[in-house]
Amino acid sequence: MSAPAKPSLDRYTPIDHAKVDFSGGFWESWSETVRKVTVPTQHQRLDEEGFLEVLNFHLPPAPLVRPIQPSGLSMQHFFDSDFGKWIEAASYTLKAHPNPALEEKIDAIVEQLAKGQLADGYLNSWFIRREPDKRWTNLRDLHEMYSMGHLLEGAVAYFEATGKRRFLEVMIRAVDHIIDTFGSEPGKLRGYDAHEEIEIALIKLHGVTNDPRHLDLASFFVNERGQQPAYYDEEARRRGKDPKDYIFKDYSYSQAHMPVREQTQVVGHAVRAMYLFSAMADVAAATGDLSLFAACDTLFDNLTGRQLYVTGGLGPAHANEGFTREYDLPNVTAYAETCAAVALAFWGHRMAQIELDGRFTDHVELVLFNGALSGISRDGEHYFYENVLESHGDNRRWKWHYCPCCPTNIARLIASLGSYFYTTKPDELAVHLYGANTGEAVLGETVVRLSQETRYPWDGDIRLGIAPVTPKRFALRLRVPGWCRDAKFSVNGAFVPAEIHKGYATIEREWRAGDEVRIGFAMPVERLYANPEVSEDAGRVALKRGPVVYCLEEVDNGFAPQRLRLAPGAGIETSYDPGLLGGAVTLSGSAVKASDAGWGGALYRTAPSALEPVRFKAIPYHLWANRAPGGMLVWLLEA
Amino acid sequence: MSAPAKPSLDRYTPIDHAKVDFSGGFWESWSETVRKVTVPTQHQRLDEEGFLEVLNFHLPPAPLVRPIQPSGLSMQHFFDSDFGKWIEAASYTLKAHPNPALEEKIDAIVEQLAKGQLADGYLNSWFIRREPDKRWTNLRDLHEMYSMGHLLEGAVAYFEATGKRRFLEVMIRAVDHIIDTFGSEPGKLRGYDAHEEIEIALIKLHGVTNDPRHLDLASFFVNERGQQPAYYDEEARRRGKDPKDYIFKDYSYSQAHMPVREQTQVVGHAVRAMYLFSAMADVAAATGDLSLFAACDTLFDNLTGRQLYVTGGLGPAHANEGFTREYDLPNVTAYAETCAAVALAFWGHRMAQIELDGRFTDHVELVLFNGALSGISRDGEHYFYENVLESHGDNRRWKWHYCPCCPTNIARLIASLGSYFYTTKPDELAVHLYGANTGEAVLGETVVRLSQETRYPWDGDIRLGIAPVTPKRFALRLRVPGWCRDAKFSVNGAFVPAEIHKGYATIEREWRAGDEVRIGFAMPVERLYANPEVSEDAGRVALKRGPVVYCLEEVDNGFAPQRLRLAPGAGIETSYDPGLLGGAVTLSGSAVKASDAGWGGALYRTAPSALEPVRFKAIPYHLWANRAPGGMLVWLLEA
Repeated sequence: MSAPAKPSLDRYTPIDHAKVDFSGGFWESWSETVRKVTVPTQHQRLDEEGFLEVLNFHLPPAPLVRPIQPSGLSMQHFFDSDFGKWIEAASYTLKAHPNPALEEKIDAIVEQLAKGQLADGYLNSWFIRREPDKRWTNLRDLHEMYSMGHLLEGAVAYFEATGKRRFLEVMIRAVDHIIDTFGSEPGKLRGYDAHEEIEIALIKLHGVTNDPRHLDLASFFVNERGQQPAYYDEEARRRGKDPKDYIFKDYSYSQAHMPVREQTQVVGHAVRAMYLFSAMADVAAATGDLSLFAACDTLFDNLTGRQLYVTGGLGPAHANEGFTREYDLPNVTAYAETCAAVALAFWGHRMAQIELDGRFTDHVELVLFNGALSGISRDGEHYFYENVLESHGDNRRWKWHYCPCCPTNIARLIASLGSYFYTTKPDELAVHLYGANTGEAVLGETVVRLSQETRYPWDGDIRLGIAPVTPKRFALRLRVPGWCRDAKFSVNGAFVPAEIHKGYATIEREWRAGDEVRIGFAMPVERLYANPEVSEDAGRVALKRGPVVYCLEEVDNGFAPQRLRLAPGAGIETSYDPGLLGGAVTLSGSAVKASDAGWGGALYRTAPSALEPVRFKAIPYHLWANRAPGGMLVWLLEA
Repeated sequence: MSAPAKPSLDRYTPIDHAKVDFSGGFWESWSETVRKVTVPTQHQRLDEEGFLEVLNFHLPPAPLVRPIQPSGLSMQHFFDSDFGKWIEAASYTLKAHPNPALEEKIDAIVEQLAKGQLADGYLNSWFIRREPDKRWTNLRDLHEMYSMGHLLEGAVAYFEATGKRRFLEVMIRAVDHIIDTFGSEPGKLRGYDAHEEIEIALIKLHGVTNDPRHLDLASFFVNERGQQPAYYDEEARRRGKDPKDYIFKDYSYSQAHMPVREQTQVVGHAVRAMYLFSAMADVAAATGDLSLFAACDTLFDNLTGRQLYVTGGLGPAHANEGFTREYDLPNVTAYAETCAAVALAFWGHRMAQIELDGRFTDHVELVLFNGALSGISRDGEHYFYENVLESHGDNRRWKWHYCPCCPTNIARLIASLGSYFYTTKPDELAVHLYGANTGEAVLGETVVRLSQETRYPWDGDIRLGIAPVTPKRFALRLRVPGWCRDAKFSVNGAFVPAEIHKGYATIEREWRAGDEVRIGFAMPVERLYANPEVSEDAGRVALKRGPVVYCLEEVDNGFAPQRLRLAPGAGIETSYDPGLLGGAVTLSGSAVKASDAGWGGALYRTAPSALEPVRFKAIPYHLWANRAPGGMLVWLLEA
């Protein structure tokens, strides 16, 4: 582990998430709920649904491998990934809040995994227990390395949280086995998993080990992807199958239809795409390969300029859990998987550390307050897999799912959120996100204590305290949100004409303990309109205030929100409702709604519905489906 | 076959469709295309796709039973039904247009079927060839009697067209076997097919045989449906299965969740529902059981008042090929299977013969000109299974289908359309539909020659010639379409103040050869609005003229029609375009469309799209998707 890493870009480094404390702010209740409710109940679900039993390598295998969970859901071949992501989320909470009982649960799982690991290092519970003869025969369909990647991310997080090396070493042995099996060297397979993930995990492992083989393997998987001849064709033929007999028709489903640097349109399975692009950004940062960053840059613009819901949701279609054609953004049938929005935060965050550009961070913030956060209930134990933008009342959160990938994904994001707030270079401090917290960064040798006093996102006034333990000159880079048209900054009470470049304002000076930056982001209610190529939003308007997208829920209004018509110029009031699901700013105003008057039993008639005046109330989209069932609408009819 | 039938309602009797000639009118090209193109090419598809080969009982069975058709589509266990419906459609064309070559093709199929028939009369090619041990074990899922029912309908039609008894006798033997197997008598199974169809066929058979057992069996199936204990529960247990392990959860999928007379909401698979209700109407008419008619009446109102697309399409959801909740009428994802619209014509037609009420016939006309006719291309050999009301350009007609039920269904409807135009009692002639034709009815003993000279549906002026061979007094019942607000009638040039009752005007007099009734139905363009419970159509308007629903297609307009906004009061012009797909009245007018101006690469922005003036052209919905691919829209944004 002493070989030098390849040269890396001069990227920003996230601070330790465990140093960030959200007490008193928006994220406090979310992060506390994840720690106190989400993490324990997810373990409970893994137990109830038989995942833990299946993992028990002390018991004889076959009879205990239950493809059907007690809830009637079937266990899938990538169930190791759920352990991996759960351990990762749990580890993030452990780092700031030691919890021996939780460590015991993790250790028990680790011991089972270690027990199952084969002599050659191979580790994938499904294949070891159920289909040992099939290992490495079908990277196209079976998520083998995806599962191992999530275990590896879990192992790294657990090591970083506790210093315990057991799981890490188990997974390093598993990686050694992968290195023995895959690569460009003669005799090795030139394969790569169709569900990207191992790449991200290997980069994280490399961050711990500094072993160049770990970075090289990630680079190999990224670079090999989409090369000809197609690995999955060859692999199918080795299985005696016709490669054309592929349910998803072509490898764009897995972003393997062409080499990654040639890709310009985001296609296929949305989570896969986000994981790949995150890995490309990681490899770019770690190796200095700007061509990978450039490809990501193009793809980011394609996603955010043509394929992203206003909530930050992505991947409209159920059929491929992903992308279809550009501007295809149906609302009622939106797939917009929670995992995909979570992974967009991963990607955008990585991009911003390579090039400090608000367009990346704006989208991290967008999903955090909307399309990702909507994936978890306010009680922290109910979930959405799909995040629709319109409901007729039949979308309800579930306790567990056939494919329970989303719960642990949103949990690990929230549990590590501190590292998304601040990133550093030796003489720079970048502030990406806003929300009350105290934190601690290290610039070069200097510890800098940080604090934000703010009601953000409910208003745009922030007091940012900057307290280096010794005075230090550095550039403070403050993100100016893309939605903000009027930003003001002062330092210690004196107005500062901050220069804004690519969405970040810079204030460079010698900072001393007691310095306070006051930030004012004007936060009016905005009406957003969609590009006319988006047929589904024609004639419609979405309401947004600051980073928060709003929706109308039937429960607040007493009528299906699809009946509402908002006049173009109508005023919209804001008020803070402390009793609403932990407190939130709601919007309200006057509008009209289509009336039943005179309809009788008719389904169609030649006269339009009468319109009657009505008051409406809108709540943050991320809070929907936490109360009584009913209709929900983001894109309101404007007329 | 000499036992007396039970007493029947005093219903109207359809005239012989073969006596109606549509030369010179709207239906000429459609019926001629069905006869000259659709029927022959459907036989060709059955050949190409291996259906004929599988049917060949002279060949050894197993190896030739190809579950995968050459096109890559899999053959389904109900493929006999495709033969049955094709023979039925072909027979209808044969009756007025003898065609020995076509008869030869039918006879060849009949001989194969006869060859396969088992000694006990059982006849179902799939089960005989592939799963002989499974017969009568799973009426819930396997369409066994559905297939036999379609063969039986084909046999009756072929007998009526040609007088040949061979197929009829084969099927009577099959029915004898069913009678031996199912019924309320001890030792018989109290089962009924989950896909209704045999009931309709048995009534048709009864019309030929007058054998009360045939009517009784139909009645048994109708009456037994939904009784407790549930037959499908018992049947599942006999197979060693848990009845709860049912993909569609409950038997409402097959309208078997409660006895049919108790049903008040149309639920489940749409085609099944329409076939059941048609059978209920048939049994009501044949037995005089008004309770069945009353149940149908309620269900008809439920369907047309809460669950019907403006095109007459029905069954919005793909998942169950059927109904969901009331007012759920999504446009882009509309399932609205062609077969279901065709079968609504069957049902509505039957209802109107029991009670002459325009609300039944209005819906027959609605589907004929819209949601059923849209299922077949202008060239007569391409089809829609799903009939969406909005497309982004990705809905294309297909040449053949995994489940090729729709092509033969629309073919048999068009090929027998004459019988929907005129029905009779001994002293009444009911005219249900309009369109140029010559026909012949028999009232009592009197032959009445009929003719309609009209451009209908392109205008509402009709010259109806009534020529009894000898003068005869009878009541002429003329349907006044529900969409018509101004109907005028004159007889031999003299205005007649016709009394209108339930949508039918009556003119009773002694009719003589040379009499002419002139009918004037005002036919302005109408704007239709949907009940505000239909969220998907909020703020939208549909254009309809007479019975014809219009849509905008991108190919006519040069832009995606979703961009259009039609002002509430804007004038709409009509013109006849002889060059459009055989000639049609099109609509045009001025409107605005959302402009790309100023959007740059943005997906969302705070300013709405600029609106630019534009001319638009709308075509009849049934003609869409016959030219270049592109967007299509029925429900236009009105603003």
